[in-house]
Amino acid sequence: MNKLFSKALVAIVFIFVFNAADSQNKIVVFQSDFGLKDGAVSAMKGVAMGVSPDLKLYDLTHEIPAFNIWEAAYRLEQTVPYWPEGTVFVSVVDPGVGTDRKSVVLKTKTGKFIVTPDNGTLTLIAQSQGIAEIREIDEALNRRKGSQGSYTFHGRDVYAYTAARLAAGAITFEQVGKQLPDSVVSIPYQKATIEGNKLKGNISILDVQYGNVWTNIPADLFKQLNPTFGDTLLITIFHSGKKVYNSKAPYAETFAAVPTGKPLCYLNSLMQLSLALNMGNFAAKYKIASGSEWSLEAVLIKKK
Amino acid sequence: MNKLFSKALVAIVFIFVFNAADSQNKIVVFQSDFGLKDGAVSAMKGVAMGVSPDLKLYDLTHEIPAFNIWEAAYRLEQTVPYWPEGTVFVSVVDPGVGTDRKSVVLKTKTGKFIVTPDNGTLTLIAQSQGIAEIREIDEALNRRKGSQGSYTFHGRDVYAYTAARLAAGAITFEQVGKQLPDSVVSIPYQKATIEGNKLKGNISILDVQYGNVWTNIPADLFKQLNPTFGDTLLITIFHSGKKVYNSKAPYAETFAAVPTGKPLCYLNSLMQLSLALNMGNFAAKYKIASGSEWSLEAVLIKKK
Amino acid sequence: MNKLFSKALVAIVFIFVFNAADSQNKIVVFQSDFGLKDGAVSAMKGVAMGVSPDLKLYDLTHEIPAFNIWEAAYRLEQTVPYWPEGTVFVSVVDPGVGTDRKSVVLKTKTGKFIVTPDNGTLTLIAQSQGIAEIREIDEALNRRKGSQGSYTFHGRDVYAYTAARLAAGAITFEQVGKQLPDSVVSIPYQKATIEGNKLKGNISILDVQYGNVWTNIPADLFKQLNPTFGDTLLITIFHSGKKVYNSKAPYAETFAAVPTGKPLCYLNSLMQLSLALNMGNFAAKYKIASGSEWSLEAVLIKKK
Repeated sequence: MNKLFSKALVAIVFIFVFNAADSQNKIVVFQSDFGLKDGAVSAMKGVAMGVSPDLKLYDLTHEIPAFNIWEAAYRLEQTVPYWPEGTVFVSVVDPGVGTDRKSVVLKTKTGKFIVTPDNGTLTLIAQSQGIAEIREIDEALNRRKGSQGSYTFHGRDVYAYTAARLAAGAITFEQVGKQLPDSVVSIPYQKATIEGNKLKGNISILDVQYGNVWTNIPADLFKQLNPTFGDTLLITIFHSGKKVYNSKAPYAETFAAVPTGKPLCYLNSLMQLSLALNMGNFAAKYKIASGSEWSLEAVLIKKK
Repeated sequence: MNKLFSKALVAIVFIFVFNAADSQNKIVVFQSDFGLKDGAVSAMKGVAMGVSPDLKLYDLTHEIPAFNIWEAAYRLEQTVPYWPEGTVFVSVVDPGVGTDRKSVVLKTKTGKFIVTPDNGTLTLIAQSQGIAEIREIDEALNRRKGSQGSYTFHGRDVYAYTAARLAAGAITFEQVGKQLPDSVVSIPYQKATIEGNKLKGNISILDVQYGNVWTNIPADLFKQLNPTFGDTLLITIFHSGKKVYNSKAPYAETFAAVPTGKPLCYLNSLMQLSLALNMGNFAAKYKIASGSEWSLEAVLIKKK
Repeated sequence: MNKLFSKALVAIVFIFVFNAADSQNKIVVFQSDFGLKDGAVSAMKGVAMGVSPDLKLYDLTHEIPAFNIWEAAYRLEQTVPYWPEGTVFVSVVDPGVGTDRKSVVLKTKTGKFIVTPDNGTLTLIAQSQGIAEIREIDEALNRRKGSQGSYTFHGRDVYAYTAARLAAGAITFEQVGKQLPDSVVSIPYQKATIEGNKLKGNISILDVQYGNVWTNIPADLFKQLNPTFGDTLLITIFHSGKKVYNSKAPYAETFAAVPTGKPLCYLNSLMQLSLALNMGNFAAKYKIASGSEWSLEAVLIKKK
């Protein structure tokens, strides 16, 4: 009796522990360029709920500009670090659907999974989070039943389905498919560098809601210039190598440190050098965009 | 003792089984023309959470153009099949709120529930999924407490509330209200037909994010023409019977099979004949829209 | 044995009851002016999931116009009442980030929690729901580990993190920080009043999707004029005290009670006096906006 009861308790405890011990955590986060006006995102989530109603489905964004792989890469870079270990991300920005681009799952060294076409989407996250292992999705096994005749919605039939099964523990990471070499398709861009008192970097993204300009120059590099609040930066912006903006802006702790409508440099929430207008839209005013073809130089001028 | 313990185990097992045995699965999926800029969608979800915090609330879309019942019908058609049996959908596109249109719950033959005004929203889903049973919502029983003075937000006070109670098992399907005859209010449109080598159909929707044109002509019908990739289709598009587009496009397996900016015909993710420009926006370029008044003809020309 | 078994049962029951007995209910509802195009909202949710994957994360809206504190206040007012007791709201519209505005958690008399900068966001909800207690967030304790160097994303590192910990029961309300006096920063606006047969009030918001104009004049006040459907209201609208619209509109039970395109007065879903065009956009046609500087007068003219 005592033994039977213990076994029951063990069984109950096992259920809880087993859930907790999964390397995946039942969370799936979706990103795409589908927008939210049609049913595509909802169909992906329906497929995931069909795999397991215990999954927790969230969104990164579905407003990636159509076919903009660079921005998909950047949004992952911006967001993945803040989700817990074991989270499975699905990113579907896939202009090459139907071509021979590979469908993969990247496991990062930080224990997160990204399910995506390997078309440049992993450019930034593979560098920053590190590649633990990459596997190619074996579509013979990992494809929604009954979807073999569909040519164009891999997001639903392969990516969402595989991500849900991985997150729910229906398949192990190994069962995704065969392991690939530890490298991903990468988009070239200006890396962050320092020479003397000059920083160079890429305009990796706009903070679209406010029109702020975010670079890939990290606080660590910037701080090698020993900046203090109130110092001035001489900023030059290039599009495909051509100069399109040149002006000074103070390094400020808060937006309110400069008058309304004036430019400032600051460290954004990702601790990267950024440009803004206090209560205004820098990108719109100066026609600045972002992507691999946009770069920036910043020279520090110490206050007297 | 042994008996007591068994009873406890039975009770525990019962809790799990009872949950699993519900025909509803605790999932509610919301659709509306409310947009996401105000609090209306959130108020609906708050009411649902007040019914049971165990519900899982997801969205189809809230960007249905205002009062566009046809598009509401289409989005359900596009999405409902991908959610598991027992899912409860709420669709609130309701220009006739306050008139005598009926508030109903449709149970499909595939075991899904749709809570909606019966105003044409069920046109397509009733045909494709089949009507198992329709019940009229009895507002005397199925209305949020304290909402009797509110004239205009049935979405929150009746539809979301009833859907949540049905999904949570607080009411059975029978308790929704009295059974109605197995028919729904339907919007007329060009059905998909074939005569010789000519297909006719309706432009049921645009793939808005990309500007692709989706018809209601299914792969089964299309394949009666024995098409192979590389064959040409002569496409004619009509708006309210007037010709507005006439041109040729190849039947392609992938978008990349034609040059950038060129038109192609393909089978979309719902396995229906569709039109697109590779890396472009077909609908915007040729001013094509969708709805019950748009139709299309396609004639197959075999490659030599 | 019997005793051991009882203890186990007690433990199991305790787990369920403990969850249910929390004053918080594990639901967190997010509002911001971040939009949904970047990863900011997702990063906030990731931080919350890192606190506890058992939380249920929902949205109010993220489309508050940038820096529009009034609208943030209004959306809370519109929505908070419909969520169950114990729900934790996070509202991040924060033009003063980096200044000395306080970060607070308001507990309403109705048992809901609002985590926000105290910058006017609580203007309406503090009045309507009542202040049970306000506490200032102690950032020494309630700040995401490793975020001390970040100047600008309090939404993620302080507000979302604190809300998640409060909702998950990782901290009590007392552990948020020290109690503040029972008052909040408030934005001045025209309160709803009645003098004879004239009502005055504020245009608190537009029902943006449809262009309807919503006032803060409640049904209770309006009904002191003894209106019946078909009575006429003479409406005058002022912007910063200047008359911008003056016309008559019937008091109608449904939009369909007036011809297409014609104005009507009605009680909206919050039971407040509102203006609309049947099947049209009142605000766009007459260039009416909303906010603290917009007001309205309504004079009742009884039908003969």
